[in-house]
Amino acid sequence: MVPMISVQEAQNRIISNFKRLEGMSIPLDVALGRILSEPIYSNSDLPAFDNSSVDGFAVQADDISLATENNPVTLKVIADIPAGSSPKIVLKNGQTARIMTGAPIPTGANAVVMVEDTQSHQIAVGSTAPDAVTLTKDIAIGENIRRIGSDITFQQKILNDGRMLRAQDIGILAMLGYSTVRVSRKTKIALISTGDELVPLTLPLTPGKIYDSNTYMLAALAEKAGCEVSNIGTAADRYDAVDKLLSQAAKTKPDLIISSAGVSAGAFDYVKDVVGSSGSINFWKVNMRPGKPLAFGSYRNIPFLGLPGNPVSSFVSFLVFVQPVLELLSGVTTKENPQVKVTLSESIESDGRESYLRAVIRKENGKLFATLTGHQGSGNLISLVRANALLIIPSGVKFCPPGTEVDAWILEN
Amino acid sequence: MVPMISVQEAQNRIISNFKRLEGMSIPLDVALGRILSEPIYSNSDLPAFDNSSVDGFAVQADDISLATENNPVTLKVIADIPAGSSPKIVLKNGQTARIMTGAPIPTGANAVVMVEDTQSHQIAVGSTAPDAVTLTKDIAIGENIRRIGSDITFQQKILNDGRMLRAQDIGILAMLGYSTVRVSRKTKIALISTGDELVPLTLPLTPGKIYDSNTYMLAALAEKAGCEVSNIGTAADRYDAVDKLLSQAAKTKPDLIISSAGVSAGAFDYVKDVVGSSGSINFWKVNMRPGKPLAFGSYRNIPFLGLPGNPVSSFVSFLVFVQPVLELLSGVTTKENPQVKVTLSESIESDGRESYLRAVIRKENGKLFATLTGHQGSGNLISLVRANALLIIPSGVKFCPPGTEVDAWILEN
Repeated sequence: MVPMISVQEAQNRIISNFKRLEGMSIPLDVALGRILSEPIYSNSDLPAFDNSSVDGFAVQADDISLATENNPVTLKVIADIPAGSSPKIVLKNGQTARIMTGAPIPTGANAVVMVEDTQSHQIAVGSTAPDAVTLTKDIAIGENIRRIGSDITFQQKILNDGRMLRAQDIGILAMLGYSTVRVSRKTKIALISTGDELVPLTLPLTPGKIYDSNTYMLAALAEKAGCEVSNIGTAADRYDAVDKLLSQAAKTKPDLIISSAGVSAGAFDYVKDVVGSSGSINFWKVNMRPGKPLAFGSYRNIPFLGLPGNPVSSFVSFLVFVQPVLELLSGVTTKENPQVKVTLSESIESDGRESYLRAVIRKENGKLFATLTGHQGSGNLISLVRANALLIIPSGVKFCPPGTEVDAWILEN
Repeated sequence: MVPMISVQEAQNRIISNFKRLEGMSIPLDVALGRILSEPIYSNSDLPAFDNSSVDGFAVQADDISLATENNPVTLKVIADIPAGSSPKIVLKNGQTARIMTGAPIPTGANAVVMVEDTQSHQIAVGSTAPDAVTLTKDIAIGENIRRIGSDITFQQKILNDGRMLRAQDIGILAMLGYSTVRVSRKTKIALISTGDELVPLTLPLTPGKIYDSNTYMLAALAEKAGCEVSNIGTAADRYDAVDKLLSQAAKTKPDLIISSAGVSAGAFDYVKDVVGSSGSINFWKVNMRPGKPLAFGSYRNIPFLGLPGNPVSSFVSFLVFVQPVLELLSGVTTKENPQVKVTLSESIESDGRESYLRAVIRKENGKLFATLTGHQGSGNLISLVRANALLIIPSGVKFCPPGTEVDAWILEN
């Protein structure tokens, strides 16, 4: 007799077989969305040198401490410092240098007067620096100077191990000069499905047949989760056909083989027998709906997970059982909790299993309300397509009146 | 004098120059995240034929209407119907057929008795059908039958034009036999940056120089938004160098050239002159921070957008000015509003411009609270890296006490 276990118990039994994948070095320009496999510390101060935050004139503040409209001070312009230059001058009293945003502050200067605060308008494109500039206001020491190390100091921790890299993270890594970065390698998934009724999308349907949709949908889920996916395709419900398919899957050297269908108690469900004959297989009934049958084991030393064949069951089982494995393998630590609290707008009946019900949640006055998207049959994908969340009704609960607060699993866009 | 305009006005002036891109046909297995360029209607009923939702025996319900434990009814098994077969039999009174989940209901049958509800256990893998089966319970007409068209009817609208395809959408398209799907073609972006101070990541830094980080960060933002990105790189602050760079950008035939830096009022900001000489350019001061300078025009008939050079300014300007253009070009209609209401945990000072301030928002008792992530200088990327949202302080506001409710723009992971 196949044992009935809880969702949590099945998750635990599966995840205990995995550990984080190794890291690898990749170019920064392909690192978006990848998971850092080590923390990042700054390898320099940022800014790396004192520089001007404006276009203007570098000065010694005490030269103009008494400057007013009635008592203007004229300084001699001894240099022109564009961004990217490395000024060798030393500013003395009575001297100034034209300086552009980002350019290094010359030795001797301790403030920068914005061009708008001077009587010089010689800042237009292609203009040369004036010989002298007249100033009519004092300035505080340090004004308009970005000090070395004021944003980031040498060896400061910048990003944590396990961070999923966003555009702004790529930006800061570039600033620090990282042309490559170490990330977790992508999890390799091989997908199969079985069933005499399945026809690949490229062939016409014949009576009694349906198109294989699970491998396409599961491939997209795995791709979205950052995996490298091999869609091995489908096999007929015969021992030799299933054996050949699994063998092809193993040849891609995946970290995990995922099968949909073929793990139920039907007369033609050969997958679990084939897996068992070249490894080990455990077959469970999980106390959930949709998605009761689940198989886990290994085939030729590759972890094997058998999901139910009904489309919605396989989708939900992927979220509940595969997603946590993928997160462990990648080491991601910045994944947001997909679960929120929502209030039911209508009553909901359940059958006592832990239920994942397709729903739309809407925000009204800052509060989230949920309505089912229709017929919850495990083959009915349209109600999943219409949903933006799955309501989680705990095991043992058979009825929730309107107004009940329940957990909802937000379905990412 | 360069005019000062509002954020909204700048957005309007830019977006009025664009229209949605054309659609193209792509294979379904690469369609995840792409934007549908036409609505999808079902090309068949789903299920396409009446089929069994369980493993069991197909019956005529009236044959067993009086069946009880004390009055069992035995039916003759005349066929074995696996999934994927096309039964030619006609069930007569007193007859049954073994049937698997998903298999077509034979003519004459109007219900399916689950194998668990029979005295037959001949359902194990590889088992053959029994000669007869004994039933001890009645069954309602239609029980365990999935009726043709009960999920989806022929020509029903399934997905809207402009939908960003999720895994479940890919699943339903596969179910309906779509091996290809029409989506908006990807927007092509060419990215450039200018500045004598910029060094590509592959070269060592010399005094006064900094690494180019903007093109990497903007490339990642554009990639995340679904674009095809050509990172053309950087040029020195000379007319001929900028001209060459823009010419290279134009050769990739992009839908939009984006520049960071070179559009300010500095003496070495040649970008706007070069663009203007081969097209047209408008140069604005936008009443926002970070990100005041902005240029928009066209270069050799390709739309050109010049973002500010400071990293945080270019990031924010991308979100505020480029993102809406990308959404229009792709035609996406399922993008969630990134803005939410949050409550300030601390007081915030602003300078009267429309301000986008880097912040962390946290949920406490179902309410969102915001705290700034530190120094808000436009070159300080670390406070952006630490942020998960930008607080939007409207123009004209100079002080918000703790407890103020403000808009926040959630930064996607």
